[in-house]
Amino acid sequence: MADSYSSYSKFYVSVDCIIFTIYDNTLKVLLTKRSFEPEKGKWSLMGGFVEPDESLDDAALRVLNELTGMKKVFMKQVKTFGEIDRDPGGRVISVAYYALLSYSDIDSEMISEHGAVWVDANNLPNLGFDHPKMIEKARAQLCRRITGEPIAFRLLPDNFTLTQLQNLYEQIFTEQFDKRNFRKKALDNPCIKATDLIDKSGSRRGARLYRFDEQTYNETGKFNL
Amino acid sequence: MADSYSSYSKFYVSVDCIIFTIYDNTLKVLLTKRSFEPEKGKWSLMGGFVEPDESLDDAALRVLNELTGMKKVFMKQVKTFGEIDRDPGGRVISVAYYALLSYSDIDSEMISEHGAVWVDANNLPNLGFDHPKMIEKARAQLCRRITGEPIAFRLLPDNFTLTQLQNLYEQIFTEQFDKRNFRKKALDNPCIKATDLIDKSGSRRGARLYRFDEQTYNETGKFNL
Repeated sequence: MADSYSSYSKFYVSVDCIIFTIYDNTLKVLLTKRSFEPEKGKWSLMGGFVEPDESLDDAALRVLNELTGMKKVFMKQVKTFGEIDRDPGGRVISVAYYALLSYSDIDSEMISEHGAVWVDANNLPNLGFDHPKMIEKARAQLCRRITGEPIAFRLLPDNFTLTQLQNLYEQIFTEQFDKRNFRKKALDNPCIKATDLIDKSGSRRGARLYRFDEQTYNETGKFNL
Repeated sequence: MADSYSSYSKFYVSVDCIIFTIYDNTLKVLLTKRSFEPEKGKWSLMGGFVEPDESLDDAALRVLNELTGMKKVFMKQVKTFGEIDRDPGGRVISVAYYALLSYSDIDSEMISEHGAVWVDANNLPNLGFDHPKMIEKARAQLCRRITGEPIAFRLLPDNFTLTQLQNLYEQIFTEQFDKRNFRKKALDNPCIKATDLIDKSGSRRGARLYRFDEQTYNETGKFNL
C-alpha cells in the first residue's frame, strides 16, 4: 500500500474486550490474571494488538474468538483510550469493545484453558492499566442502550422468565425495580412474547417462559424497558 | 519509555474533528477542500496526526485550536475508524471527535485563513475518505445526547430566544416540532431561565431572551428536552 505519511509517528494499537454475561443471577465480566510483564499478576481485560491486515472490529472479534470459540457475537466499540502513560510497557492506544454473551453459548473449558475467569461485575478486583475506566464506560453505555434497544436478550438464554429479565436489568443498573411495574413495562413490548413453556425449577407453580421475537421488533422498531 | 512490544506492528493514528455550529438558523459543519494528496480537491473534515507526546484528546484539541484559536471547547469522542483501506495514503486509524461551538465565539478570519468553510450539515457536498460516516455517527450521538443533557446551549449565544432553541433542535433532528409543546417542555427545565432582555430584531413586540443556568442544572442534575 502507498505510504504518503512517512514523516509522522506510528503507534501500537490494541483492542480490549469487556465481555459480559449473566450467570448465577449475577452480571459477570471476563478477566484474566496477567502472566507476563507489564502489570504481571494483576487482573486485566482480554486484549490483543491490532494486526496490519485486520480492521479494529476484526481484531476485537479475533480476540473474542480465540478466547471463546464464538464467531458471531454482539460487540460494540466503547471508546478509544489514548493517554500517553496508560501502559507502562510502551505507548499503546487501545480501542475498548464490549460484548454480550449468553452463558449457555459459552465454551467454559476453552475459557479456563486461557486462564480467564468470570468475575462479578459489581464487585471487581483491582485491575491493571486503565481497565477500570474501560469497564465503567462500557457499563454506562450499556445502561443508556438497553432501555431503548433490545440488546439485553443477548445475555439471556432463548427462553427466559420475567424474573430473569428483571434480575438482569437490576444487575446492570445496580438498582431494585418494582416487580409489577417492571412486568407491565416488559409486556408492553410486543416483541417480548410468551411461550407455551413453564419453568418449574424455581417453584411448584412454575414461571412462564418468554422469548424475544426479532421479527416483531423489526416490524415495530420500538422497544422501551 | 520502555517498549515491551517491539514485535508488534505500529500504525499511524489521526484525529478527525466534526465541528458544529449554528449560523443563519442552520446547523453547519466545518469542512475544507484538501489541497494535497490523497483525495486532493475533495471536501474533508479537519484532522491531523497524533504526536508521540500527546493524548488523543489533546491531539483533537490541538487541531481545533490551530484552526479556531479556541482553547476551551466542548468535544466528545465519537468513534474510532479502523477499516484497512479507509485512507488511500496508508493505513491510518482515525479517532473522530465532535465539537460544539457558539458562532459568536468563532474567529471567522482565522478559519478562512485555513481555507475552512461552514457547510450546511443537512446538505453536505461529497466528502473524501469515510468522513460521511463520521459525520453521520456524530449526528446520531448528538441526537441521543441532547435530549437528556444540556449540551445544545454550547451551540447558542449566552442569551437566546426559545425560537432559536427550537430551531436548533429542529436542525439537529431534521424534524419540525410543535411550538407550544416545545416551549412547554423547554420551560419545564428549571435550568432554562428567562432574562430581563427582549430581542426586538425579529418583531416589533420582540422575543424574550433566555439563558442556560449551569448552577441550577448542577443542583438538580435533570434535563429533558
